[in-house]
Amino acid sequence: MASSTASCGQMHKITDGSVHTPLGFKATGLHTKVKRKRKDLGAIVCDVPASAAAVYTLNQIQAAPLDVTRESIAEEGTLRAVVVNSGQANAVMGKVGVADAYEMRDRTAQAFGLEPLDVAIASTGTIGERLQMEKILPGIEALHPEANPASANAFAESILTTDTCTKETCYATEINGKTVHIGAVAKGSGMIHPNMATMLSFVTTDAAIAPEHLQQALSEITDRTYNRITIDGDTSTNDMVLTLASGKAGNEPLHPEHPDWQPFIQALQCVAEEQSKQIARDGEGATKLVEVNVKGAPTDEDAGKIAKQIVGSDLLKTAVFGTDGNWGRIICAIGYSGVTINPETIDIAIGPHLTLSQSEPVNFSEEAVTAHLKQDEVFIDVELNIGDGSGKAWGCDLTYDYVRINAGYRT
Amino acid sequence: MASSTASCGQMHKITDGSVHTPLGFKATGLHTKVKRKRKDLGAIVCDVPASAAAVYTLNQIQAAPLDVTRESIAEEGTLRAVVVNSGQANAVMGKVGVADAYEMRDRTAQAFGLEPLDVAIASTGTIGERLQMEKILPGIEALHPEANPASANAFAESILTTDTCTKETCYATEINGKTVHIGAVAKGSGMIHPNMATMLSFVTTDAAIAPEHLQQALSEITDRTYNRITIDGDTSTNDMVLTLASGKAGNEPLHPEHPDWQPFIQALQCVAEEQSKQIARDGEGATKLVEVNVKGAPTDEDAGKIAKQIVGSDLLKTAVFGTDGNWGRIICAIGYSGVTINPETIDIAIGPHLTLSQSEPVNFSEEAVTAHLKQDEVFIDVELNIGDGSGKAWGCDLTYDYVRINAGYRT
Repeated sequence: MASSTASCGQMHKITDGSVHTPLGFKATGLHTKVKRKRKDLGAIVCDVPASAAAVYTLNQIQAAPLDVTRESIAEEGTLRAVVVNSGQANAVMGKVGVADAYEMRDRTAQAFGLEPLDVAIASTGTIGERLQMEKILPGIEALHPEANPASANAFAESILTTDTCTKETCYATEINGKTVHIGAVAKGSGMIHPNMATMLSFVTTDAAIAPEHLQQALSEITDRTYNRITIDGDTSTNDMVLTLASGKAGNEPLHPEHPDWQPFIQALQCVAEEQSKQIARDGEGATKLVEVNVKGAPTDEDAGKIAKQIVGSDLLKTAVFGTDGNWGRIICAIGYSGVTINPETIDIAIGPHLTLSQSEPVNFSEEAVTAHLKQDEVFIDVELNIGDGSGKAWGCDLTYDYVRINAGYRT
Repeated sequence: MASSTASCGQMHKITDGSVHTPLGFKATGLHTKVKRKRKDLGAIVCDVPASAAAVYTLNQIQAAPLDVTRESIAEEGTLRAVVVNSGQANAVMGKVGVADAYEMRDRTAQAFGLEPLDVAIASTGTIGERLQMEKILPGIEALHPEANPASANAFAESILTTDTCTKETCYATEINGKTVHIGAVAKGSGMIHPNMATMLSFVTTDAAIAPEHLQQALSEITDRTYNRITIDGDTSTNDMVLTLASGKAGNEPLHPEHPDWQPFIQALQCVAEEQSKQIARDGEGATKLVEVNVKGAPTDEDAGKIAKQIVGSDLLKTAVFGTDGNWGRIICAIGYSGVTINPETIDIAIGPHLTLSQSEPVNFSEEAVTAHLKQDEVFIDVELNIGDGSGKAWGCDLTYDYVRINAGYRT
């Protein structure tokens, strides 16, 4: 078994690219003093109505901004702007939270010269604290990208909570002879165990594509990317992935029967996978990215489920932190994943080192495995030998800092 | 809402009682040097064939001793002895592990003057390491309770791994005019997220009861007790609860139509609940026992599922460690538990302090909540206001020591 990394095929990575790179988009962020020092309010705007698609958390407790954004997208399937605050999540605030969310949207529309239904909103931060509207509303007035140096990095910074770094990605690909860009910005880094959606991630593209086809593409790749990461097993109340397509690349509109549909899906998946890995790597307190690759499962879905169970095991995560090649915790997680396996035919490798073959322990070099576990990217490969399904999942180690951050920070 | 504690009704707690207290049982433990200092091999014996019942982990990867014990119980439904080693789990050792398990059983039978099918075995410790038979077999020769000072406490000590204390319980109750004792010994304290069974727990009673009825009683109470604890979300490969009934109390044999069946079930549940709380309180690195009590759910099962989801949330566990009255993490866990709830009607109290009422935040004293969270028993009460189902679950806080223990200890 060999470790694997994401394959982005023919795609061209744009260094320093972000959500502003696709034609038609600007982004910005500023500091309203809700947070002590870091930027806390940001926006992405598109100079034309962009096709819009989103996936949301499946948590039954959903923050007010999600409903407001759903309403804006439902109207015509297009958006002109999204505004995001960090610090308070505007979740579980009852009627006052709903009113604040609508005011946030409506005041943005007013300030940007748009209709309310052109605007999406998102919030992240502490549950059960009221938005500091006395700071956010003046912030919105000052937020117009014409009034600010447009900066995708400022936007990426403005949406962070316990994250230690911004998470930006951009790739270019060819779609029927036109260059199409896909850029994205995300934030983590706790309460991360997405289910049909995830944390916050904003994806822009200049591809031409109708809203319903953009939604189809987003839903398809979400199950293989954002939904395959876990930091702590807690599915947030505020998770959302929002995708905007300006159409400015000038390609023929994409749809599932278009010959370039699959290349577009792959491009979108490539960006989403890179965002997912950025989030996992910056999990609260994390020192390492862990990628688990499961093969030989009954189905791809089963493989993904097992991979996510392994990468979500607190015991595996502490073993990775302690650089302990403890494959017993890996097979234990395989056994309780809920997928029917054959207990007698399992192979497990840590990095390139086989530790279990056909469910029998293999003599391996503890030093070599420890050396692999000391790297900042750890690969675990599992071969179940019962089918053709495969799938990956990403997570991080569980460290003293995770406890420190969460014994103090109120999310 | 008021916090609640276990109610053991008319039962009489036996101070210093344990698995040796019910008539007919002796227990002992000794040090074979598999572990550096602590005892690591123990046995319980019964001087008559005891009705036997067991529940096992639902992990598909099951340690060899579980199959051997199943075979012994299947024969006649009775046992005379159980022998347990700690240090190695004898899990995922392939054919050699199966052979070692049988040898452990057969040599015990020989040494104790019993038939192999009179003997159950159990192992706990590191997965994927071979049993140190060269130490265990001489240990078995020396283990006969006649050759050792009988000591339930020595047995309780001999089965520990990362546990910091022994876990022993004993209650007495009246069954049709006879005093019936139920004693129990358990070990935790990591890889604890039982599913139909749990860690190791050994329950003895002098009640007269046929094996099939003992099995029925054990299965019924397991779902409300052992299966309601979680330390780290990892369901072990070696979990087992084994119950032995000597019949020496002299009561008419118990069965589901017997007028004292329910009192017996309650007595057994009381012992199992106390064992469960002892295990949760001594979770790896734990400083506190957390009890979550959910009411107003569609069914008792739903309430138990939500309670276990809350108590298993890493974010809630770190908040408890940090004495942060962070009810947002509680409602977040309610929302992703998979049980259909009404997001608008939820009450949450931490200790006696209401923090959320009908899903709207309540002004509460942060100091008072923090004072409750500083106690070594923390109570969280949830009222969903949609039905009559209720259920509890138990867990512990997530601390720096959990990370320290598991970044180093190989389970």
